[in-house]
Amino acid sequence: MTTLNSKLLSRTNLDFLLYDWLEAEAMTGRERFADHDRATFSTMIDTAEKIATDWFANHNAKGDKHEPYMEDGKVVLIPEIAKAYGAFRDAGFLATTNDAQYGGLQLPFVIDRACIAYFLAANIATSGYAFLTCAAANLLLAHGTPEQIDRFALPMLAGRFTGTMCMSEPQAGSSLGDIRTRAELQPDGSYRLFGTKMWISGGDHELSETIVHLVLARTGPAEHGVRGLSLFIVPKHIVRDGNPAERNDVALVGLNHKMGNRATTNCVLSLGDGQFAVDGQAGAVGYRIGEENRGLSYMFHMMNEARIVVGLGAVMLGYTGYLHAVQYARDRPQGRALTQKGGDPVAIIQHADVRQMLLTQKAYVEGGLALCLYLAKLLDDQSTGDEETARRAYLLLDLLTPIGKSWPAKWCLEANNLAIQVHGGAGYTHDFPVEQFYRDNRINAIHEGTHGIQALDLLGRKVLNGEAIAYLDSVIDDRCTSAAGSANPDTQEWARRLRSAWQDIQRVTEGLSREQDVERRLANAGLYLDAFGHVIIAWIWLEQVDALDRATDVSEDFILGKRQAARYFFDWELPKINHWLAILERLDSTALEMQDSWF
Amino acid sequence: MTTLNSKLLSRTNLDFLLYDWLEAEAMTGRERFADHDRATFSTMIDTAEKIATDWFANHNAKGDKHEPYMEDGKVVLIPEIAKAYGAFRDAGFLATTNDAQYGGLQLPFVIDRACIAYFLAANIATSGYAFLTCAAANLLLAHGTPEQIDRFALPMLAGRFTGTMCMSEPQAGSSLGDIRTRAELQPDGSYRLFGTKMWISGGDHELSETIVHLVLARTGPAEHGVRGLSLFIVPKHIVRDGNPAERNDVALVGLNHKMGNRATTNCVLSLGDGQFAVDGQAGAVGYRIGEENRGLSYMFHMMNEARIVVGLGAVMLGYTGYLHAVQYARDRPQGRALTQKGGDPVAIIQHADVRQMLLTQKAYVEGGLALCLYLAKLLDDQSTGDEETARRAYLLLDLLTPIGKSWPAKWCLEANNLAIQVHGGAGYTHDFPVEQFYRDNRINAIHEGTHGIQALDLLGRKVLNGEAIAYLDSVIDDRCTSAAGSANPDTQEWARRLRSAWQDIQRVTEGLSREQDVERRLANAGLYLDAFGHVIIAWIWLEQVDALDRATDVSEDFILGKRQAARYFFDWELPKINHWLAILERLDSTALEMQDSWF
Repeated sequence: MTTLNSKLLSRTNLDFLLYDWLEAEAMTGRERFADHDRATFSTMIDTAEKIATDWFANHNAKGDKHEPYMEDGKVVLIPEIAKAYGAFRDAGFLATTNDAQYGGLQLPFVIDRACIAYFLAANIATSGYAFLTCAAANLLLAHGTPEQIDRFALPMLAGRFTGTMCMSEPQAGSSLGDIRTRAELQPDGSYRLFGTKMWISGGDHELSETIVHLVLARTGPAEHGVRGLSLFIVPKHIVRDGNPAERNDVALVGLNHKMGNRATTNCVLSLGDGQFAVDGQAGAVGYRIGEENRGLSYMFHMMNEARIVVGLGAVMLGYTGYLHAVQYARDRPQGRALTQKGGDPVAIIQHADVRQMLLTQKAYVEGGLALCLYLAKLLDDQSTGDEETARRAYLLLDLLTPIGKSWPAKWCLEANNLAIQVHGGAGYTHDFPVEQFYRDNRINAIHEGTHGIQALDLLGRKVLNGEAIAYLDSVIDDRCTSAAGSANPDTQEWARRLRSAWQDIQRVTEGLSREQDVERRLANAGLYLDAFGHVIIAWIWLEQVDALDRATDVSEDFILGKRQAARYFFDWELPKINHWLAILERLDSTALEMQDSWF
Repeated sequence: MTTLNSKLLSRTNLDFLLYDWLEAEAMTGRERFADHDRATFSTMIDTAEKIATDWFANHNAKGDKHEPYMEDGKVVLIPEIAKAYGAFRDAGFLATTNDAQYGGLQLPFVIDRACIAYFLAANIATSGYAFLTCAAANLLLAHGTPEQIDRFALPMLAGRFTGTMCMSEPQAGSSLGDIRTRAELQPDGSYRLFGTKMWISGGDHELSETIVHLVLARTGPAEHGVRGLSLFIVPKHIVRDGNPAERNDVALVGLNHKMGNRATTNCVLSLGDGQFAVDGQAGAVGYRIGEENRGLSYMFHMMNEARIVVGLGAVMLGYTGYLHAVQYARDRPQGRALTQKGGDPVAIIQHADVRQMLLTQKAYVEGGLALCLYLAKLLDDQSTGDEETARRAYLLLDLLTPIGKSWPAKWCLEANNLAIQVHGGAGYTHDFPVEQFYRDNRINAIHEGTHGIQALDLLGRKVLNGEAIAYLDSVIDDRCTSAAGSANPDTQEWARRLRSAWQDIQRVTEGLSREQDVERRLANAGLYLDAFGHVIIAWIWLEQVDALDRATDVSEDFILGKRQAARYFFDWELPKINHWLAILERLDSTALEMQDSWF
């Protein structure tokens, strides 16, 4: 019997994906990664697993039970969160991929994401503070001035400051064009901001010396919508000579109380209400990033990173839930085999329906993890120095980001649902972590753009980029061609089905693009996202199967398990797209025609 | 715009189902219901709505937040629960359907379930105490001696005592044959019981004078499995002269802490550990119900009732979530129509994907409620005095119970999931009730027999009853015939599709029944349950559509909404069975062949 080497993530599977499939070791031949070798990669992943286990998993349940609260205007977190943050920082995880000139380790993204995966599985809520900080720092590195980088980004990478993304407002959630926060230019070139921001994860706490808020606000009239948005650095404290000094006019109004992901504070912030007036003047002091009115495009730098990490978080909650369910199913005796007369109970993993629930989870979470690592590889491919490779990687990543965010948020949530079911009544109690995984995961279909928003992004924008689609077509075609030449008839058959499904998607996309009525064209975009996602994951499963032939250090059990999960995905999951595509193809208007007054 | 007349349940829809479809008013012509008329029915439902709103919904969130706890060996509940129980009792709801000789109101089950629906929607956890008591009392009325009825059942119906069902033990959840609790016969004909029971809902509290546990235990050796189980009355206190006296040897060991349904205590109980020795002797005093070794068949009286109420509870959590989501979607402005240039935001109900999520919920919850009321009618049909009607109703109910329990537990849970999604980030917080509805509902696929157990019951047992299938076939056939004669081409088309889907189910059932290998035959029973359930709900939707032609007091909007939900179910949901049935038909062995060592 396979021993679970961790209940966070199977290292065997991770190594297979990194080295046998994505050929991560070969990356050390690139100049950027020349200081590394497989040993340093492994050490970093070992360290991630150890810190995640010792410092993050240790308080996952406690952080859920003891939600952050306000006392004397300050946020109180359980103390384990600060210790975890310190361990994470000290081991260099805040700057794994960053340039050495900024104190970074210059590791490939695929290795970074492998490390991050452990933290997300161990404690997604505590991890949130770190990953938001990294994403905010990376935005500044890409779009800030050298002075802004020195003053804000480097202390973030060093773990002194943390970061947030401030977009939503009470009246503006998905609809960023309705943002009202105003930024008024001051004589010295800085701005003063006024408005209310909400749903701000990590928006207040005492983990860091100060918090660097990246705030979308407008300098002109509201009618300008998203095109009138600029992006500002608004620190919780004014930073003087590299150190936080007096408070900036950013006040915590309240904390949201959530179903899950509870140890990450989620805040309503008031900007410029005068509670912490600076120099006797109300208004939160802010510094513009880049050009005026281009704020949203800069914010997308952070948002795209956040979306991919959200997807990875959804995968990892599903993954750890799956491993817990496997363990429980092996340990729990209950019932007899259908053919058994009397005798001792068998472990529930012997029951077909339990095995089916576990196999479904395996297909979802291993498919999802492989997709996330593939997206990380696309990030690495943007820095090879080869322009064509970089462009191809950029376009593929842009196309696949809605899938990388949404597919895991939907299907790895379902994996958590099944993990509860495997546990039976025990899974419904706080005695086992699977119910928390489910609650924690439920946010991922909502934040960083809901399913509905991702669906419109994919069908209404991303797939219209013919160049990106052509790249994807060639990637899928290459894999189908190589798999069709496999000695294994199942693999050949899966290649045939994938090719057919991908052609179906393309046919439906074309049909939809001919529809002039934009409401009809996009009416069932959610199903399109589902179908496109399932085809992508089928392709990712074929990639994994193909890589098994090249795998050097995996057991026969590992190979058979991978193939069975692939079989499950091709036989049980992929055919679901036929029904979805049929609805899309006939431009079904059932939802569109439903009237408010009929509910 | 339709005004939501309640956020618990649409009375318009309820009245349509009761009077236009199920012809509840005609039941007053039966001798049993001769004291009633439509006015008394309506008054009872009005009262249920009022008490549910004022005394149950008022503390639904509070009961979730303040879980029951133990203090000095006693369970402390928030005080609102006792007040709710009192209001429920005082209005006669503990004995709505019972005979007048037992103090009951002799109302039809369809009216009782209509009333119960409000309480389940308002506060499923507080409702739990009452419905378990009713089910336990009804078991005693059916199988107890006159003395047992007097001593235990009547005080339960009067609200003085409450009741529980004690089956599970730490090593025996789904597998009742492994129950170890022993019952030792005493010289006076009573028994002493020894063992540990767990997952006991309402297993301890101070709501009532005492608690009447109905306990499965064995008098002989463990090898006898389920055939060696007898059923016992084990009161928390010894009852003397109609009043609880000293404690019986039943001790509360601990409370489970759950994801949802939190205000219903869920207990581990120790029987006979000597903590409350009676007459100086350890052992919980128990009184056998009926014959020895027939305990499980008696318990099924209670379990079948509980399963149907579980299904109704799942429906009602979905239903109230749906109504909250409709209201939120009407109230929340966000974004613009796709064709809109500038201007004010629209209510999110104007977005196609939101309408689709609401329509899906409507199709699930209205379909589920109609099924539950139909099952209630089958209960009523067993007391018409006509033997053939009674037998037909009994067999149909027996066949459809796994569907009535499981279909809502799966799909109305999904309705709650969609209600959260409609609310966006707000739905993930405790500021709106939908996240609690979701958590509360998640237990329903687990307790009273998991999905897997219900699936084996349906495919391994229930559908093998040719007489029951023949009755169902004739009911579906009648409806298809009448719908095929409709003037509306959609209705005709739906009738055609339902007939075809039902034939598909029967073909697949036959194919499976020819398979000699029981493991292969039942390997994918879960999909069979899903497919059978979807066909049943499609039939129930056709029933509703058909009844629209006879409806006297419904608006055009109501009719159009019903038809659109039916259209959704036939176009979007029913076709899902094709994929499921294909897997079943090919005797797919993907899950069966998966090996433990491959995970």
